Amino acid sequence: MKVLFVGDVVGAKGREMVEQYLPKLKKKYNPEVTIVNGENSAHGKGITMKIYQKLLSLGVQAVTMGNHTWDKKEIFEFIDEAKALVRPANFPEGTPGKGIVYVEADGKELAVINLQGRTFLPAIDCPFRKADELIQEAKKRTPYIFVDFHAEATSEKQAMGWYLDGKVSAVVGTHTHVQTADERILDKGTAFITDVGMTGPYDGILGVDREAVLKKFLTNLPVRFEINEGRGQLNAVLVEIEEGTGKAKSIKRILINDDHVYFE
Amino acid sequence: MKVLFVGDVVGAKGREMVEQYLPKLKKKYNPEVTIVNGENSAHGKGITMKIYQKLLSLGVQAVTMGNHTWDKKEIFEFIDEAKALVRPANFPEGTPGKGIVYVEADGKELAVINLQGRTFLPAIDCPFRKADELIQEAKKRTPYIFVDFHAEATSEKQAMGWYLDGKVSAVVGTHTHVQTADERILDKGTAFITDVGMTGPYDGILGVDREAVLKKFLTNLPVRFEINEGRGQLNAVLVEIEEGTGKAKSIKRILINDDHVYFE
Amino acid sequence: MKVLFVGDVVGAKGREMVEQYLPKLKKKYNPEVTIVNGENSAHGKGITMKIYQKLLSLGVQAVTMGNHTWDKKEIFEFIDEAKALVRPANFPEGTPGKGIVYVEADGKELAVINLQGRTFLPAIDCPFRKADELIQEAKKRTPYIFVDFHAEATSEKQAMGWYLDGKVSAVVGTHTHVQTADERILDKGTAFITDVGMTGPYDGILGVDREAVLKKFLTNLPVRFEINEGRGQLNAVLVEIEEGTGKAKSIKRILINDDHVYFE
Amino acid sequence: MKVLFVGDVVGAKGREMVEQYLPKLKKKYNPEVTIVNGENSAHGKGITMKIYQKLLSLGVQAVTMGNHTWDKKEIFEFIDEAKALVRPANFPEGTPGKGIVYVEADGKELAVINLQGRTFLPAIDCPFRKADELIQEAKKRTPYIFVDFHAEATSEKQAMGWYLDGKVSAVVGTHTHVQTADERILDKGTAFITDVGMTGPYDGILGVDREAVLKKFLTNLPVRFEINEGRGQLNAVLVEIEEGTGKAKSIKRILINDDHVYFE
Ligand SMILES: [Fe+2]
Ligand SMILES: [Fe+2]
Ligand SMILES: [Fe+2]
Ligand SMILES: [Fe+2]
Ligand SMILES: [Fe+2]
Ligand SMILES: [Fe+2]
Ligand SMILES: [Fe+2]
Ligand SMILES: [Fe+2]
Repeated sequence: MKVLFVGDVVGAKGREMVEQYLPKLKKKYNPEVTIVNGENSAHGKGITMKIYQKLLSLGVQAVTMGNHTWDKKEIFEFIDEAKALVRPANFPEGTPGKGIVYVEADGKELAVINLQGRTFLPAIDCPFRKADELIQEAKKRTPYIFVDFHAEATSEKQAMGWYLDGKVSAVVGTHTHVQTADERILDKGTAFITDVGMTGPYDGILGVDREAVLKKFLTNLPVRFEINEGRGQLNAVLVEIEEGTGKAKSIKRILINDDHVYFE
Repeated sequence: MKVLFVGDVVGAKGREMVEQYLPKLKKKYNPEVTIVNGENSAHGKGITMKIYQKLLSLGVQAVTMGNHTWDKKEIFEFIDEAKALVRPANFPEGTPGKGIVYVEADGKELAVINLQGRTFLPAIDCPFRKADELIQEAKKRTPYIFVDFHAEATSEKQAMGWYLDGKVSAVVGTHTHVQTADERILDKGTAFITDVGMTGPYDGILGVDREAVLKKFLTNLPVRFEINEGRGQLNAVLVEIEEGTGKAKSIKRILINDDHVYFE
Repeated sequence: MKVLFVGDVVGAKGREMVEQYLPKLKKKYNPEVTIVNGENSAHGKGITMKIYQKLLSLGVQAVTMGNHTWDKKEIFEFIDEAKALVRPANFPEGTPGKGIVYVEADGKELAVINLQGRTFLPAIDCPFRKADELIQEAKKRTPYIFVDFHAEATSEKQAMGWYLDGKVSAVVGTHTHVQTADERILDKGTAFITDVGMTGPYDGILGVDREAVLKKFLTNLPVRFEINEGRGQLNAVLVEIEEGTGKAKSIKRILINDDHVYFE
Repeated sequence: MKVLFVGDVVGAKGREMVEQYLPKLKKKYNPEVTIVNGENSAHGKGITMKIYQKLLSLGVQAVTMGNHTWDKKEIFEFIDEAKALVRPANFPEGTPGKGIVYVEADGKELAVINLQGRTFLPAIDCPFRKADELIQEAKKRTPYIFVDFHAEATSEKQAMGWYLDGKVSAVVGTHTHVQTADERILDKGTAFITDVGMTGPYDGILGVDREAVLKKFLTNLPVRFEINEGRGQLNAVLVEIEEGTGKAKSIKRILINDDHVYFE
């Protein structure tokens, strides 16, 4: 089974990049499942029903989230019906939405789990214990398990990778909006990358207009973060999972921007 | 002018990797200047006189530091005499050591500046203003300026890159111990990468033994972080700077580990 | 010289308490100068021109601020003209407003300085060094110096008290919205209290509606913090400063609420 | 039932103060139960078996802890046998020790619960949910329940007070080492104070030598925190609980230092 995972889609530019390149990537790599992290898909902050549906219509089977899950209020109205929307599973008990979804692909199922880290982020439930719990549940249905670990600290992300090594097919990090070059198959067969990177503006700072971010760092005055309007980029990974065992066979970074032009 | 920058050297394994591969890299790439970040070179915590001298003897011209600068107490005894040792320049006024050194290379000078971020790190002086101040000073001597920005947050690191775009030859990030795949030449000619990555154990978590890190995340109990004893890796970048202008012509990531075997 | 300092005034209820009790307190204690911290005076977030003027009309001579300084955008339009408005002096260089004002009282001058801590708060300039700088300036005009140190951590606040002991008349803490019982005259004559406490709702959590705060702690979902509409409280201190020397003679806590009914 | 709770005992000076004043306070107030927070009782860091036993021999029935629980390694050897030692109940599952103990007094039982906050402190389990769970358990045995909530942020502490109002006899805060002046009986009968304050040196910064703390704030260089050797203080509260209902009838602050001399 091949899974294409697209890193944090930021705003209209991010959605454009998905629209433009997803067909090409699907044609080139033939993934059975495509997942995107959509926590910034609505102008950088959260997701709307319309955007969620748009992503599905582009051929996405699951949309993961993160610390921006609740930025758009309308999510409370559709999250429980949105079967392909996954928010961090270790959000406190009683939070709307769900932290695991199962995607059907070719007669098989891929469990897609979303978790959020706690280092430099709000104190929520333990992501490691929640992972154990959900994996135990998922294992009853399928050996194919894909984890989006939305976290800031490289230590916590690598810790999760090694903690789940051999238990899931892949652990991919999101949130920092910068792709890391450390993709690998861990010792017991789990594909890992610290961060997939971001899909959206190529000329901003994590997608945001540079002027505002610099003003913030220089003055600590309130600023309005706008999405950068320049060129686009797409950051993704392709994970190939062994049939039957659920172990990862390969993980490949995908980086599309004006410095890394896409070749078919 | 070509500059080789080696990311955070961690412990004996990191020093071994430098010893083993620096001659090969020098032969292959012919850098006029080699810089290493040495904040973790003494068993993961700080640097000693002996290790500092060892790094120089291996052909390093400048050693940058970071938040681990003071971990080994003996540094207070030699930092002021160590001409090639650079600690973050925005440490509070009155702190021992210096934040800029000038390396001679082929009749030219490379200014090497070390700065530290403040996001998720201690509140020290403003790194952006300190950068301005030191660059103004350096520009009087040389157009070749290399900045190691030791910081946690990708936003702060990219902000620094864009802030200094066109003012320095390169801004390379350190501290997260994971190489990022976003190396590029910014619009006005500054080479940039969010993080160069780490040089040391390949099978630990940021260089540290996995068991201890996992115990910490799972229990919050006190643990003793030991350096992982497994295989090694080396993470670096090679920056080529245009003669005369000081603008960067290229930045190339270097990644050596068992998944990226070195070829001469 | 007697100085009455009223802790963080929160919203309409806080302003009401000032309006109701300031005349009584002035009659009872005869302070030459009255200062209020106004960072939350506009519905909990920042201050407006109208509210600033209202406070002055109630007999306040200086209004100090804190981390909520910029919450109401209109402050940028009047801060530079507002002669009695003091924002933290260690905000980054180039920030609008000023960190010291001089209040005339009975032919003498009281320097009022506002500083902000950095522990658990944004990384700004060093409050200790900025204090030194401003005190040196103020000493040229007057021995009477009053410092509002707006900070979270008790350690940083006590550190500032001891650091300025003997150099200023008083260091009073604000920001935590809870009055501490540790008011005292330090060894060299500086009046000190870790926090003056808050003036506003008595039945909220730091002034805010309890339901919203609890929802936040329990679910980490976005909530709208509304000012609690219940009973009021006023928290203040009265500092008596020795004529000539500027040393503090006494510091007295004032606490008015339904559990500590005001007696004339 | 009367309960005397003594705030964070710091080092030898703190233990001396307990030794000197506990007999007097017991004689004066006749508490059926005495509790002390002992997280700093061993030279500021943790607790030893000997000190734990010493505290019991002085007439203490329960010792609560906090973020310094594990500072002295020997605690792992005796915590499970130490029947009167309570560590924060919301430490991660599998942590040694217990978060609730039952103290017998006059044929009745007082449940003593210790919880730790998460704001500005490590991410552990939810203290609010853990409180619910333990209170449900305790209610089966006794209506008398006393909670030491060890936390930094005033907001989280007040939130806990209001959350448990009517469910427990008292919620007293510890950890900031500064007594607050906001003791009160909440609407539904729970005694509350944001922080009881510290028992130990009166002339340090939270108990620690001033010079080291100031050096840390001014230079961010590593320092060794030593306990201040000057005069002592004792901070405590006395809570009176109604027989039968477990509701609080009164809460009284106790503050003993050279500015608040003890009168019998
Ligand atoms: Fe994101
Ligand atoms: Fe995120
Ligand atoms: Fe490092
Ligand atoms: Fe570092
Ligand atoms: Fe405030
Ligand atoms: Fe504040
Ligand atoms: Fe403590
Ligand atoms: Fe504590």
